[in-house]
Amino acid sequence: MPSSSALDRPGATLAAVHENAPLVQNITNFVAMDLAANALLAVGASPAMVHAPEEAAEFAGIANALTVNLGTMERHWVDSAEAAAQAAQAAGRPWVLDPVAVGATGFRRANAQRLLACRPTVVRGNASEIMALAGLAEAGGKGADSTVGSEAAVEAAAELAGRSGAVVVVTGAVDRVTDGTRQATCANGVATLTRITAAGCALTALTGACLAVEEDPFLAAAHALAIYGVAGEMAAVLAEGPGSLRWRLLDCLYHLQPGDLDMMARLA
Amino acid sequence: MPSSSALDRPGATLAAVHENAPLVQNITNFVAMDLAANALLAVGASPAMVHAPEEAAEFAGIANALTVNLGTMERHWVDSAEAAAQAAQAAGRPWVLDPVAVGATGFRRANAQRLLACRPTVVRGNASEIMALAGLAEAGGKGADSTVGSEAAVEAAAELAGRSGAVVVVTGAVDRVTDGTRQATCANGVATLTRITAAGCALTALTGACLAVEEDPFLAAAHALAIYGVAGEMAAVLAEGPGSLRWRLLDCLYHLQPGDLDMMARLA
Amino acid sequence: MPSSSALDRPGATLAAVHENAPLVQNITNFVAMDLAANALLAVGASPAMVHAPEEAAEFAGIANALTVNLGTMERHWVDSAEAAAQAAQAAGRPWVLDPVAVGATGFRRANAQRLLACRPTVVRGNASEIMALAGLAEAGGKGADSTVGSEAAVEAAAELAGRSGAVVVVTGAVDRVTDGTRQATCANGVATLTRITAAGCALTALTGACLAVEEDPFLAAAHALAIYGVAGEMAAVLAEGPGSLRWRLLDCLYHLQPGDLDMMARLA
Repeated sequence: MPSSSALDRPGATLAAVHENAPLVQNITNFVAMDLAANALLAVGASPAMVHAPEEAAEFAGIANALTVNLGTMERHWVDSAEAAAQAAQAAGRPWVLDPVAVGATGFRRANAQRLLACRPTVVRGNASEIMALAGLAEAGGKGADSTVGSEAAVEAAAELAGRSGAVVVVTGAVDRVTDGTRQATCANGVATLTRITAAGCALTALTGACLAVEEDPFLAAAHALAIYGVAGEMAAVLAEGPGSLRWRLLDCLYHLQPGDLDMMARLA
Repeated sequence: MPSSSALDRPGATLAAVHENAPLVQNITNFVAMDLAANALLAVGASPAMVHAPEEAAEFAGIANALTVNLGTMERHWVDSAEAAAQAAQAAGRPWVLDPVAVGATGFRRANAQRLLACRPTVVRGNASEIMALAGLAEAGGKGADSTVGSEAAVEAAAELAGRSGAVVVVTGAVDRVTDGTRQATCANGVATLTRITAAGCALTALTGACLAVEEDPFLAAAHALAIYGVAGEMAAVLAEGPGSLRWRLLDCLYHLQPGDLDMMARLA
Repeated sequence: MPSSSALDRPGATLAAVHENAPLVQNITNFVAMDLAANALLAVGASPAMVHAPEEAAEFAGIANALTVNLGTMERHWVDSAEAAAQAAQAAGRPWVLDPVAVGATGFRRANAQRLLACRPTVVRGNASEIMALAGLAEAGGKGADSTVGSEAAVEAAAELAGRSGAVVVVTGAVDRVTDGTRQATCANGVATLTRITAAGCALTALTGACLAVEEDPFLAAAHALAIYGVAGEMAAVLAEGPGSLRWRLLDCLYHLQPGDLDMMARLA
């Protein structure tokens, strides 16, 4: 098991992304594709948006990691995602599940259940999404509760992690990571990131890049939070609003250096 | 019926969007999704891009307003849009139809006809689009005339409004709104907005947000024009070209305050 | 055959785009749509993202040029692209094929073969893509070699051009254009453009605009490279990273004047 000092040093993971330029396949939503791909390019990873049923699983055998985001799924894309996730698992490659608005409709609940059965390496969502997903894993079909508090989500995350075998990330004012045993928090980030679309989805993509270079998914997930949160903090200093925050986030991800990241990260 | 002074005070509608954070479902085109979603977030609304046939109508029962944009429709998305529009109408929720390039192909004309039959609360288009749609409502299938003058479009708009029961918005150098009886104009906005994609589509999304908080769709549509036009004017002062205009538009939408909006709006 | 001085004067082609505002239909990938459409608008062309099977071929009869990008193809979009390419060819309109990552999967190889059979006016790709496509034209199905050198790609490009009848563009540190007989290079551009998504796809869209106004596709392709490369150089001077490079590229495309382009172009 990694020492606690490794948790505090996300710079090593960022440096490994810079050096290895991992190929990250993303089956993501129409709104998030742009920011997710550009966030990966900004940190030196190589994004691939490959979701057609005819090639998604084949490509998962090439990619170093896979991310699946359920934001604007169509039925045949869910088939693709399932096949790609199975291919990734068969090849021993990590993959991330992002259950966007999982509690909103029956279609989303069913999609999330199918994907959760493919044993994601990491699940990332906000408190409502993780609560809804924990409910699904237990009782099969409970909707999201939009009034959940963060403490409730922490318990749900631990439960979901224990049951599914995934590292679970709950993003919010303070982000939380658990593998069912270990717990970590990341206090980086700024609230205005919630005013741009795809901010969470881009984090999911970055988590894929970190998983490709860091073997321990608990550390990889925590380090992705720090990379994204620190870049967001730097961008927020310079931004004049959500429009400029978005491109400054990409500029800051591009310029972020491992040493500075280690100094600015607030992981515990 | 609202007094004429209410037309002059779009700030009240913007304040209501800020306060109520309406959930706006958008079935829109692949190019517009990003700007439309970010424009909604910038004014404090909550965007949801939900268009899968399995969930579009279900979600329309949750959302406070629906917008349908025919820019890059696929056949099964038209089915989704029709079902969602019917669900919105059944639930008493407002919805906006944006008939992008309706005169260009037979597929677009047929799609627009199907959606128009679902009785949109507001229809928003440029002069050519509104002319084409008015022709459809009358004769079923006449193409758009790209050489229409604004006066001709005004008449077509009034006719379309009277026949369909929708408030009709014609955007251009001066934007025009009519419900068949009342007429309003909005002189805000800048020509360079036509040099960025999805500028009209983002306005359609904002119109959805305003409809969710202002009961009179005539006022809601006019106020959306003022909000967007004033933010565009502010952005144009600072922008160096269409690339910077786009993100400055989002920054200005984010910072726009009701009092300043009332002062800068040119509604009549 | 145009004189060599015409190759050196891309400003005439840019001026013709400004004057004629060609309508360019793009069947492109989900990530590229936004930048491609905005790049076309920035130079005064009119973008249309029309790919539904019900209308793609019909619209190709209206548009002045067509571009097909295989980045995130779905099966029914390949049908659309094939029908649109055939319609464009039947109407004597130019069209561009962009075989994104053609060597990565069997689906991509098959799609590229189908489209190559529709006789594109221009094929644009990076060295790996052109090598893979040249292999396909020869042997039907050979994968891309990611370790190809630029010299090998030049030979593959000439071979592909001779066999297919297309002008072939290989982009890289120095871009190369050939019609099988003539050879040109363009030394404009900056490496950081590879750190933003859709940079190549936007160039493909611009190539469509140039083909619509310049009869010689060899010159049109070379001039598109110069327009894009010079705007990229101007943008890179001002940009702080890939996030700002993207919007500055659009601002620079918008402001680029034919006379300045002629002075800054490095075509040979």
